[in-house]
Amino acid sequence: MRLRAMASDGALKYPVIAVNDAMTKHLFDNRYGTGQSTIDGLLRATNTLIAGKVFVVAGYGWCSRGIAMRAKGEGANVVITEVDPLRALEAAMDGYRVMPMIEAAEVGDIFLTATGDLNVIDEPHLKRMKDGAILANSGHFNVEINVAALEAISRESLQPRQHVTTYVLDDGRKLHLLAEGRLVNLSAAEGHPSAVMDMSFANQALCVERIANGKSLACQVHPVPDDIDKQVAELKLKAMGLEIDTLTEEQCRYQNTWQSGT
Amino acid sequence: MRLRAMASDGALKYPVIAVNDAMTKHLFDNRYGTGQSTIDGLLRATNTLIAGKVFVVAGYGWCSRGIAMRAKGEGANVVITEVDPLRALEAAMDGYRVMPMIEAAEVGDIFLTATGDLNVIDEPHLKRMKDGAILANSGHFNVEINVAALEAISRESLQPRQHVTTYVLDDGRKLHLLAEGRLVNLSAAEGHPSAVMDMSFANQALCVERIANGKSLACQVHPVPDDIDKQVAELKLKAMGLEIDTLTEEQCRYQNTWQSGT
Amino acid sequence: MRLRAMASDGALKYPVIAVNDAMTKHLFDNRYGTGQSTIDGLLRATNTLIAGKVFVVAGYGWCSRGIAMRAKGEGANVVITEVDPLRALEAAMDGYRVMPMIEAAEVGDIFLTATGDLNVIDEPHLKRMKDGAILANSGHFNVEINVAALEAISRESLQPRQHVTTYVLDDGRKLHLLAEGRLVNLSAAEGHPSAVMDMSFANQALCVERIANGKSLACQVHPVPDDIDKQVAELKLKAMGLEIDTLTEEQCRYQNTWQSGT
Amino acid sequence: MRLRAMASDGALKYPVIAVNDAMTKHLFDNRYGTGQSTIDGLLRATNTLIAGKVFVVAGYGWCSRGIAMRAKGEGANVVITEVDPLRALEAAMDGYRVMPMIEAAEVGDIFLTATGDLNVIDEPHLKRMKDGAILANSGHFNVEINVAALEAISRESLQPRQHVTTYVLDDGRKLHLLAEGRLVNLSAAEGHPSAVMDMSFANQALCVERIANGKSLACQVHPVPDDIDKQVAELKLKAMGLEIDTLTEEQCRYQNTWQSGT
Repeated sequence: MRLRAMASDGALKYPVIAVNDAMTKHLFDNRYGTGQSTIDGLLRATNTLIAGKVFVVAGYGWCSRGIAMRAKGEGANVVITEVDPLRALEAAMDGYRVMPMIEAAEVGDIFLTATGDLNVIDEPHLKRMKDGAILANSGHFNVEINVAALEAISRESLQPRQHVTTYVLDDGRKLHLLAEGRLVNLSAAEGHPSAVMDMSFANQALCVERIANGKSLACQVHPVPDDIDKQVAELKLKAMGLEIDTLTEEQCRYQNTWQSGT
Repeated sequence: MRLRAMASDGALKYPVIAVNDAMTKHLFDNRYGTGQSTIDGLLRATNTLIAGKVFVVAGYGWCSRGIAMRAKGEGANVVITEVDPLRALEAAMDGYRVMPMIEAAEVGDIFLTATGDLNVIDEPHLKRMKDGAILANSGHFNVEINVAALEAISRESLQPRQHVTTYVLDDGRKLHLLAEGRLVNLSAAEGHPSAVMDMSFANQALCVERIANGKSLACQVHPVPDDIDKQVAELKLKAMGLEIDTLTEEQCRYQNTWQSGT
Repeated sequence: MRLRAMASDGALKYPVIAVNDAMTKHLFDNRYGTGQSTIDGLLRATNTLIAGKVFVVAGYGWCSRGIAMRAKGEGANVVITEVDPLRALEAAMDGYRVMPMIEAAEVGDIFLTATGDLNVIDEPHLKRMKDGAILANSGHFNVEINVAALEAISRESLQPRQHVTTYVLDDGRKLHLLAEGRLVNLSAAEGHPSAVMDMSFANQALCVERIANGKSLACQVHPVPDDIDKQVAELKLKAMGLEIDTLTEEQCRYQNTWQSGT
Repeated sequence: MRLRAMASDGALKYPVIAVNDAMTKHLFDNRYGTGQSTIDGLLRATNTLIAGKVFVVAGYGWCSRGIAMRAKGEGANVVITEVDPLRALEAAMDGYRVMPMIEAAEVGDIFLTATGDLNVIDEPHLKRMKDGAILANSGHFNVEINVAALEAISRESLQPRQHVTTYVLDDGRKLHLLAEGRLVNLSAAEGHPSAVMDMSFANQALCVERIANGKSLACQVHPVPDDIDKQVAELKLKAMGLEIDTLTEEQCRYQNTWQSGT
């Protein structure tokens, strides 16, 4: 997002391939990696029981839907907040409750942000939260939860466990902020497992090679070439010991024709 | 697929908007609609217990992953076959078994095809199937299961229930084909529920209006305009009584800058 | 329940074996059978899209948790109502929302009762329901939904589809009652699949044989003998082609000792 | 099990209430507590990606089904081994693959034992496992995995991370044993969350009180009184802020009669 803004301002000085947009990156690393490691960070920091908790996930992009999926997998009752109507609709159809954050604030036991934007949890939300609520972020930076606002409405803060700061609000309620609002999966756990980072690194290596060896690219943000994406997927399947089907000649022909099958 | 082939052959005589590619179409109609109605067709045709069955889904596109999701939701043990390595990988990461159809043929109790290609279940697969296996298709046409091959290796066929043809193979095994290999969700059930078709129809109506009112479009296959897609999602959320968040000015600004947050 | 009440009143004239209490009955027939067939009945009657709907299940016994599991598997957001604190707690830990029916009445799109008691959905609940709500019963009799109360607050009733009676309330809201409040899985679908009834019938046959051949039993309600329950499970596994482990001698010995392993 | 063996040998010198058999204990602590904390221990020890892995769970009792449920929730493909046909059947109907351990040994990436018996993973299984397989135990003691047998077929052992012992087999394959085969959720994680232990402790406290205050009990293993179990559930629901329904007088009467509703 930042690099595309730079490119459109003419501030980008060299070509970039957006590895994060590779299917073998965002479909896997963001979803399965962030999903698992976020829950992992939450548990290492708090050892709280997730089953039976109302678990609010801000966002329904690839990272946040990974988190939602894993929270559900641990027995949580998941609530999604979104600003994009399409994603909100998808979340609802996936069986989650969808509501604005100002309502979610009142019912949530655990809050996880992963939107890429700032102040997703802001003062009005903090003021409505239940005593004992847990707040953490797995989005890009420590701006998703407005920590300054949290400090401003608190009379003291405690450190009951590593990675947990407990804010005692003026009215006596306690809110537990994990990892100071920084990425909880990196701070309190170990980040993505190697078995999902391997695909991201393979994309990076093969894309750098393509830039180095290929004909010169414009100073823009380019997508990952399809053949690299596919190659990474094939290598990964092989490493997992999985075999798949191959289109027969007859099937290839059928896909490219419009004279039969209608 | 057919229309794009026509366009590249110069055979397309008027502009087309590919409503099937709208997010509010394929993310919903194909996935939630086909998923539910396929299981519905299977049950109306057979009343078989899905729990505990090995349920083979050919393909892991939007339709087929909807079917897989619902089969899992009924307690099946789901196997996915694919030709695309990326989708195969995604299926594996979603917890499904992935294998070539020739292996799946030996373990499956129920087979559902939704690939868009022909002879996905062909003679070699049919020959390896277990006695009593059920075969059905929810893909585009009645070509996904090679019915001619099935007839060729059978000594007789019976009609034990409406929508069920039982083929008695030469070796005595029985294979049950539903709806003659035609779309089982349309033949044996009622197709997609109105609550998911409404979005597809809204897309169609708004796209036709756009073609009629807009400036002339080339005789190509065009994507659904983003604003129409978004409008349909907003209308649907409203109909479901769901409210979502709106980006604050501060958040919009933050998304479009690259000078902070890095 | 009825027979035990008779026995304690001295009104039971012959011995009874409570086949419904067999593990191979209630763990399977009630849960997997009722779960699947109830959703099946709902879909045949209405063809409504379940994904994205708030689906209220009254009860969290074996039948009702089967229904809840399958509704969730179709993408619903499931709400459980209960009178038993233990079951309510289990429902919450399983990730469902738990609330009294009077609150559920206001949020539900679809209501399914399976409690074994009467007037679980009564006038106060009906008065609060959303326009368009669907009501059905999969519990023992057509008493779980108070149909008389529904008629009393309606100004007319329509029959838009087979198995659907639409009540137009005095304030104009419409409530759709399926199968007149009778068991929707028997009325609108085909009841349990044979693949789950086989175990119930096997229990019945083997228990009747036991009564006929065994020494005389008191005129009470007796549990299914463990060995019959186990035999039915073994036969079913065999029919499904599944093999399991057997305890080694060493393992048997270990289980029955208390001198080692502490 | 041990205490009942003692009682039947006349070796039990005081009354015991089997708190582990309380519904509010084994339905919650064993299932939700062990389930979550076992996955937690596995991740803290290895940081392995669970999605896409074949995850073998030995047993389908309360602990092991909790583990299976959470492994599935993390995206694993779960295989169950059992010696009890009823539980095996339930596992199959829940959508898991069921097979003997000797077959599971060949396909598993991760093995978790929770059976209460010894040598569940023994030399013949170890010899067939894939290179890189992970082994851990969440059952009662460090006897479920035959560690002596593992050592006997290894040429060396390494300690690549805390809680991980890597055995290099004579043929070069590596097997990773977690926490020396001791309970991985206690060794590598923090055991059950307080939010589930609270119910177990409440049961213990209330049962000790009952023994102290009540009339003298025989030196046997007694079940937890139903009223204590129910009281614990009610207290827990209240602590979670959940309200449930209460039977009306009419409903109570209906449940205890056999003259109506038939």
